[in-house]
Amino acid sequence: MARTPFDWLDEQADVRRRAGLVRTLRPRPADSSLLDLASNDYLGLARHPEITGAAAAAARRWGGGATGSRLVTGSTELHAELERELADFCGFESALVLSSGYAANLAAVTALAPHGSLIVSDAGNHASLIDGCRLARGTVQVVPHGDIEAVRKALDAHQGPAVAVSDSVFSVDGDAAPLAQLAEACREFGSGLIVDDAHGLGVLGDGGRGAPHAAGLAGAADVVVTVTLSKSLGSQGGAVLGPAKVIDHLVNAARTFIFDTGLAPAAAGAALAALRLLRREPERGARAHAVATTLHDRLTAEGLQAVRPDAAVVSVCAPSPELAVQWAADCRGAGLAVGCFRPPSVPDGISRLRLTARADLTEGQIAEAVRVISRTAPPAAGE
Amino acid sequence: MARTPFDWLDEQADVRRRAGLVRTLRPRPADSSLLDLASNDYLGLARHPEITGAAAAAARRWGGGATGSRLVTGSTELHAELERELADFCGFESALVLSSGYAANLAAVTALAPHGSLIVSDAGNHASLIDGCRLARGTVQVVPHGDIEAVRKALDAHQGPAVAVSDSVFSVDGDAAPLAQLAEACREFGSGLIVDDAHGLGVLGDGGRGAPHAAGLAGAADVVVTVTLSKSLGSQGGAVLGPAKVIDHLVNAARTFIFDTGLAPAAAGAALAALRLLRREPERGARAHAVATTLHDRLTAEGLQAVRPDAAVVSVCAPSPELAVQWAADCRGAGLAVGCFRPPSVPDGISRLRLTARADLTEGQIAEAVRVISRTAPPAAGE
Ligand SMILES: Cc1ncc(COP(=O)(O)O)c(C=O)c1O
Ligand SMILES: Cc1ncc(COP(=O)(O)O)c(C=O)c1O
Repeated sequence: MARTPFDWLDEQADVRRRAGLVRTLRPRPADSSLLDLASNDYLGLARHPEITGAAAAAARRWGGGATGSRLVTGSTELHAELERELADFCGFESALVLSSGYAANLAAVTALAPHGSLIVSDAGNHASLIDGCRLARGTVQVVPHGDIEAVRKALDAHQGPAVAVSDSVFSVDGDAAPLAQLAEACREFGSGLIVDDAHGLGVLGDGGRGAPHAAGLAGAADVVVTVTLSKSLGSQGGAVLGPAKVIDHLVNAARTFIFDTGLAPAAAGAALAALRLLRREPERGARAHAVATTLHDRLTAEGLQAVRPDAAVVSVCAPSPELAVQWAADCRGAGLAVGCFRPPSVPDGISRLRLTARADLTEGQIAEAVRVISRTAPPAAGE
Repeated sequence: MARTPFDWLDEQADVRRRAGLVRTLRPRPADSSLLDLASNDYLGLARHPEITGAAAAAARRWGGGATGSRLVTGSTELHAELERELADFCGFESALVLSSGYAANLAAVTALAPHGSLIVSDAGNHASLIDGCRLARGTVQVVPHGDIEAVRKALDAHQGPAVAVSDSVFSVDGDAAPLAQLAEACREFGSGLIVDDAHGLGVLGDGGRGAPHAAGLAGAADVVVTVTLSKSLGSQGGAVLGPAKVIDHLVNAARTFIFDTGLAPAAAGAALAALRLLRREPERGARAHAVATTLHDRLTAEGLQAVRPDAAVVSVCAPSPELAVQWAADCRGAGLAVGCFRPPSVPDGISRLRLTARADLTEGQIAEAVRVISRTAPPAAGE
């Protein structure tokens, strides 16, 4: 066969195959009978009739797409309403909605870390924060996971503007960042703090107001929070929350805001409906966290190794990538969908099952999940 | 007032104010009476009942969001169907749908330009391609806009894998890249070609199959195309089209695919419906281009300076940022929405009105638009 410019991909595919690291897409049907412990639909809202109905109504009223950049035709009154209610719910002065949480992170980090500034980034941060750091003009210093002293040291050594950047709940292990201490360290040095609350919003804080709210940081002049509308809120999109002057700056400077089509009305409508439902049913977040804790306690009682969940994500160690894949496949065979994280998606090279709790799981479903996961566990998983 | 870490933003805001470059959001109502020559809804599909109905039906059937990464729970059969039909329509082996065109460009460029490779990037490329270049591990060489000889020279000087990267239709001026010649240049040196067909899909090529199709590049083993679902298709999202092995590679390596929630079902459903409508009404694309040409011809006949449109975007020169803003505001005051591009959104510092043609504009609307734009033109615009 003739050579093509992309033949080097064949070799990479071979390497992946040999290492057991091939990823393939498995499209699901609308009426899957699997018990879902894999999605990030923490509050069970993605299929809730109020949310899907709001998405449908927004599409019919506002159109299939936003039709342009938010700066041209892409801002509707629906976007503005969502921004007001998000800011109000989470306790911040202003909010800006973008097309994804990924885009929100790229926007916040690049716009707040100009040339000459320092970004101090936790080693466990999400890919989108890492890409934000790489795109930003500032200098990046990665500090060990959860190491406040290292943050202090980095900030102390720098002259000029600085921001620390951290997930609130880390997406792989589901452990929480020490936000209050992090903010205190930043304040000592007059630095800003950017918190990605993708896995905190809806689950942590009073009524699901998020991890920054729980840490007493809501509305702080030195804190900027990013969230996603795609997990607890059952939709798609992202937002940046913070002081009005930060939001104004993003409108003028953030490339993933300016040069991207606005969020589709259906997604904005769904997120807004989810937010309103959450106000009416404030116990959903605590319930998701409680389900996660129950899952953890019962799985460790079965001899498995799992990280104590700070929110709705439960990480269970697997002995190898191959065994993790086999384990997840066995769960699936027994009617249970679980996530499976392997290199290069895990920073430490340790493969795990990633379980997500949902507020709407019943006691029977929790028991069934624990039964399937322990029964299908590879022998070495309990060591 | 106490100092905060974000006080440096005040100074930047002052600079913007003094330069007349402040951007503000102007949320539109659902029933705006403005004549729209500002959106990228080239085919008039965003509010089409078939498209909005499909969005609504998809939300109800599949949920408000995809609930996870496409690699976990975020792939539905709806995504797979959209990918098959998109690939088939545009004439490529495979397609991969992402949450935005921005994400699609970041994915394609970063995954196909590893360490040691060369990326040759047109100076007029869209922000998302530029950010893709900056995130990629390869070395970037920016070449003058539309300069094939410069592309040749850059490729000739490099050993190892290389890709050239270009918009098919440039978003600011609406001019087309010489795709066939670009592909020829790439082939001389065994390099790949990545084409961003955001403004070509739906408008150019047989029945709207896009600029690469028109240039005879559909299905080529050395060509990868990115598209957005947010312009001609009236929805949100993006896709990468190309050889199956490239798509498989993206599934395994592209961070904005792996670490991002899948596209919301409503958006996938809307785009799929738009694609099917386009197959049934293949003349829409040519009509959008014809409307753009008419706008250009009549505006230049009125003495204005405009770039001859290669697709549906018409760029009209303005004497200064302030006068461009005033001109756009005067148009709006007269019932006409037009885009206004100013620094830093324009690479050459020249401000312009950006008009977009729509396939569904009537002769009366076109005449009205020309009348308003010429009547409100600042004196110096005709020079
Ligand atoms: C911590 C974290 N931040 C950001 C994102 C990106 O959000 P989105 O999927 O809405 O782009 C994710 C997951 O997708 C995440 O886990
Ligand atoms: C040339 C070009 N590429 C990519 C994009 C990004 O697409 P999306 O808005 O779907 O993210 C745009 C505009 O938004 C564009 O004009």
